[in-house]
Amino acid sequence: MNVSWRSVLARALHYHREPHARYLQLATVSPQGLPHNRTIVFRGFLRDTNIIRLITDKRSAKAEDIKSNPYGEICWYFPKTREQFRLAGSLQLIDYTDPDRQNQWQELSPKAKAQFFWAEPGKPRQAEEFVRECQTSDPPANFCLLLLTPNHVDHLNLRGNPQTRTIYQCQDQDTWTAIEVNP
Amino acid sequence: MNVSWRSVLARALHYHREPHARYLQLATVSPQGLPHNRTIVFRGFLRDTNIIRLITDKRSAKAEDIKSNPYGEICWYFPKTREQFRLAGSLQLIDYTDPDRQNQWQELSPKAKAQFFWAEPGKPRQAEEFVRECQTSDPPANFCLLLLTPNHVDHLNLRGNPQTRTIYQCQDQDTWTAIEVNP
Repeated sequence: MNVSWRSVLARALHYHREPHARYLQLATVSPQGLPHNRTIVFRGFLRDTNIIRLITDKRSAKAEDIKSNPYGEICWYFPKTREQFRLAGSLQLIDYTDPDRQNQWQELSPKAKAQFFWAEPGKPRQAEEFVRECQTSDPPANFCLLLLTPNHVDHLNLRGNPQTRTIYQCQDQDTWTAIEVNP
Repeated sequence: MNVSWRSVLARALHYHREPHARYLQLATVSPQGLPHNRTIVFRGFLRDTNIIRLITDKRSAKAEDIKSNPYGEICWYFPKTREQFRLAGSLQLIDYTDPDRQNQWQELSPKAKAQFFWAEPGKPRQAEEFVRECQTSDPPANFCLLLLTPNHVDHLNLRGNPQTRTIYQCQDQDTWTAIEVNP
């Protein structure tokens, strides 16, 4: 869907080709009501939608957070253009048989796939062998496709004094309004 | 206080001298229970403590979040060393007369000070003049020193396959335990 914030984000990505430019920070709320925040990799948009593709392990604390509070906000900072994008919306964990999940798994490198065969994240480390690479074509049960459907996008450009800031608000599935606000 | 995660973080900062290496992402929870996330500048530690100094505008959405839920999690990613630090703890807004707040204000550049004289953040932008620089030695009422007192630090090093991850947990004011966990 060709909404206005998509082209602004596409331009920022164009200027940032290094792999870590696809690292963003995802905030969620724990079952205890506490904020959590971690770096996660942007995997692209879902087909021709504005839905952001991420992945996670069903055994991770983040999956627990999402089960109890299915909302998230991404903060994505681009240092060369000095732009910040905040994308807030609902989160959906897809851990069942689904063609998008299957396609996402197949896109992963053997190293990325291997991580889903490691011991439980966050548990005390044991002197066990960690799989280094994996070629399996079907995802294991703990592999989740994680989708963020944004309904609010806040774009801040730190260039200029004063800075510029635009808020995009989803009115309907593909209808967005944009408003310039004070930074 | 010389706790173990401090030296690990100091080393990451040493390898990242560019100004944007001091940009981190702070997650909070809104009064509606939704996660929020934005980039904020690390201003150093408070005197000889492990308390992280940040600043904010009392008129910002973030200050509203903190008043209703005084907890935050910082996510801080260092691209050169491929390290992530997550620091979770309580947040304190200092908007009253206080020597640390006064010192923090005086440390700011004239450009950074000027932002606190701008129109209300997030409100529709008007064609008004924005102050470019400000030399005032006393902070305005909306200037807040924001302190994060970490009680949980999660350090992930993406170098190596498998990666390494250590969780530091505060037991008492200056007593921390460290445990190696699965990444």
